[in-house]
Amino acid sequence: MPHITMAPDQFPGTPGLMRHRQETGRPLSALVEVLLRDANTLSRSERELVAAYVSSLNDCQFCVRTHSEISAQQSEDDTDEARAMIRKVVADLDSAPISAKLKSLLTIAGAVQESGKAVTTDMVTRARELGATDTEIHDVVLIGAAFSMYNRYCDGLAAVTPDDPAAYAQFAGMIIKDGYSMCATGH
Amino acid sequence: MPHITMAPDQFPGTPGLMRHRQETGRPLSALVEVLLRDANTLSRSERELVAAYVSSLNDCQFCVRTHSEISAQQSEDDTDEARAMIRKVVADLDSAPISAKLKSLLTIAGAVQESGKAVTTDMVTRARELGATDTEIHDVVLIGAAFSMYNRYCDGLAAVTPDDPAAYAQFAGMIIKDGYSMCATGH
Repeated sequence: MPHITMAPDQFPGTPGLMRHRQETGRPLSALVEVLLRDANTLSRSERELVAAYVSSLNDCQFCVRTHSEISAQQSEDDTDEARAMIRKVVADLDSAPISAKLKSLLTIAGAVQESGKAVTTDMVTRARELGATDTEIHDVVLIGAAFSMYNRYCDGLAAVTPDDPAAYAQFAGMIIKDGYSMCATGH
Repeated sequence: MPHITMAPDQFPGTPGLMRHRQETGRPLSALVEVLLRDANTLSRSERELVAAYVSSLNDCQFCVRTHSEISAQQSEDDTDEARAMIRKVVADLDSAPISAKLKSLLTIAGAVQESGKAVTTDMVTRARELGATDTEIHDVVLIGAAFSMYNRYCDGLAAVTPDDPAAYAQFAGMIIKDGYSMCATGH
């Protein structure tokens, strides 16, 4: 049960909190829209994977399950195969079957989850050697930082976390169709 | 030196990053504007103190010094006395000379800095018994979460952190006069 009183018909998780207090919900949903959905040399599926990975390090189950599902449904691969790949990244990044470049970016995001100061020049140099641009490095640091916020917001207010996998599959479909702004505004 | 190439005339710290990539800078500055400056039953000085306290727990010196100074300059007390009080809160919250209600809210923000799951029902009940409203509890959780982002963003990209106290006093005056949106837009 959430720590604050909320209308019973709210969305679960962070989207429910965004809808509950729209003054903050609007910039919160605008930020995640830019980070995970705007035009970018990293695909939507890749950026959602970064969000899911950071959320797993923060043990925020609502966010892990939501962003894993949005990543899988937007993958160029078969959705079930993508779900299995994401589970491998979350379980053990080092052995996961992804490109060296994406692994180097996930390593940076994982360091940010620990602390901003945990990002080293070596990590950034490695990502750049593997082809990462300054904007990709910036955005991955900010996705790591932003999900260190969304995860704390969700669990810090004890937002509702559904058990049923179908709830996440359905919600992911809504985000992919309508974008994150509908979390705060309802449309 | 920052991990990414930035124009040499940028602001230091997080504001420089917001100006560098305005697509994300706009929602980032809009969020902090609502949280720390919009109409609220917690004063601007109190909310800036929460931001400074969380930033101290994350050891983000740019953010500690900036938000301590903005809190002090907006305090109803003498600015030097306010600066001394803020240093006491940052050094040892338990013994700091502030109200029990504000202390209970800072305790919640400090738990959020650790993890969303570290916020307990007892902490929330205590704050409510001391007069905190649901909106105040919501906002303090979100300030704690948001500064767990801004701090990681600032240090994760190794943003420039000035040494000179005068730089923070001057920048605080600009924020108090013009608001946070000028960080991303320049006006």
